[in-house]
Amino acid sequence: MAGVAIVGGTGASPGLSVRPVGGLPLFGPGDDLAGAITQALAAAGDRLEPGDVVVVAQKVVSKVEDRTVPLAGVRPGEQAREVAAKTEKDPAVIELVVREAQAIMRAVPGVVIVRHRTGHVLANAGIDASNVSGGEGESVLLWPDDPDASARGLRAALEAAHGVRLAVIISDSLGRAWRMGTTGSAIGVSGMKPLRDRRGERDLFGRELQATIIGVADEIAGAASLVIGEAAEGTPVAVVRGAVYDPDDEAGVAELLRPLDKDLFR
Amino acid sequence: MAGVAIVGGTGASPGLSVRPVGGLPLFGPGDDLAGAITQALAAAGDRLEPGDVVVVAQKVVSKVEDRTVPLAGVRPGEQAREVAAKTEKDPAVIELVVREAQAIMRAVPGVVIVRHRTGHVLANAGIDASNVSGGEGESVLLWPDDPDASARGLRAALEAAHGVRLAVIISDSLGRAWRMGTTGSAIGVSGMKPLRDRRGERDLFGRELQATIIGVADEIAGAASLVIGEAAEGTPVAVVRGAVYDPDDEAGVAELLRPLDKDLFR
Repeated sequence: MAGVAIVGGTGASPGLSVRPVGGLPLFGPGDDLAGAITQALAAAGDRLEPGDVVVVAQKVVSKVEDRTVPLAGVRPGEQAREVAAKTEKDPAVIELVVREAQAIMRAVPGVVIVRHRTGHVLANAGIDASNVSGGEGESVLLWPDDPDASARGLRAALEAAHGVRLAVIISDSLGRAWRMGTTGSAIGVSGMKPLRDRRGERDLFGRELQATIIGVADEIAGAASLVIGEAAEGTPVAVVRGAVYDPDDEAGVAELLRPLDKDLFR
Repeated sequence: MAGVAIVGGTGASPGLSVRPVGGLPLFGPGDDLAGAITQALAAAGDRLEPGDVVVVAQKVVSKVEDRTVPLAGVRPGEQAREVAAKTEKDPAVIELVVREAQAIMRAVPGVVIVRHRTGHVLANAGIDASNVSGGEGESVLLWPDDPDASARGLRAALEAAHGVRLAVIISDSLGRAWRMGTTGSAIGVSGMKPLRDRRGERDLFGRELQATIIGVADEIAGAASLVIGEAAEGTPVAVVRGAVYDPDDEAGVAELLRPLDKDLFR
């Protein structure tokens, strides 16, 4: 099945829509995220269509998977104390950062960049103290244990509930090496190839296209980020309709990650 | 004026739409890009609304600004010959890359990464031989001389024609340091701040948001990239409606560029 296309908008041409899923509850450990999404869509008179990509913010996935860690029980080891001193950050938080990291890439005052155990390079190993219940600073939220598996589980439940083929992306806001600001990025995927390989396609003059491997899952996560808010009025789930991608039952997010030995920028 | 919102889609909730502008001609030097966009929208029974972001692929901007360079007249200098040898690329193309670069960041077989004179870090200084008329390899297309100025000019013409306040983004597909695949990115902007600063906003529990400076112009460019095709069926222009951004008459793309001395990833 091609990624299908066509959607709303006022024009006659096909296009893309990105709609927030409103009316979701606050989530806690063990909650049925797919069920809540389905209920919220139904309450809005909406439904999922074949090829839709459901983008879910990492935070709510981590919450239902009970990835909250109370800081009181965390004892910083030697490496954590060193990195905490360099970064002027809470040693207990940094202990969790170290546990979640394959490698510490950079530690300077206020900033710690790591290569996460999943292979993503990001600040604080994705650990965030906001939007977690409990008093300020008392607990933090880790990434899902296996974001691809989280995406697969959500996709299976949503496909069963809606009777259509879907893709699911777990997203987070990641910084970039050379550019300021974060962009919504895919940290787990199911149902699609995260890259779209257009090599071999021809341009208007019959020549092969150049920049032809597209990080389509990141572009979709970024589009969803434009409607997914982290603040009070926000919702953690969006439905992207009309994106062209290659459906795939096996692919995970790994092919989006540049191997360190292919790093072209340092 | 807030970035306004609301659009198409089948749900009751607000959201984002990204619509390709179809029916555009092939462009050449001196062509009226804003006029062609306005005509194509009118032919589709469509119009621009307040707050719309018009995203235009760099290639067509470069074409109307006559940034095509025939390679036959390019004499490679010493630096270009060295870099061409390292990268196994055409010395004439590399001469243009060198002229467009502040600095060569990396040169290995098949790859040259530069810091462009505009400050962007990217492969080949954005020089691309596809979709340029003339025989294969005979000419290449440089980035616009000043992509922010290109965006300002387009915005002024489109605002005059449509009588609404708009933003314009000139986009290109850029690679990333740590991730595979390109994503549509902003290389010139007008009418908006390219970053959205949410510091000071509070989460559901009253705590300050963390990842709170968002590269919103890049997210919009990435969303547009999902409908902007480079191949035969593609169109170089998309209209993004419903994105929340901070309107600004002065801002250019510069604040999206991380200063080299603030590079956190190397």
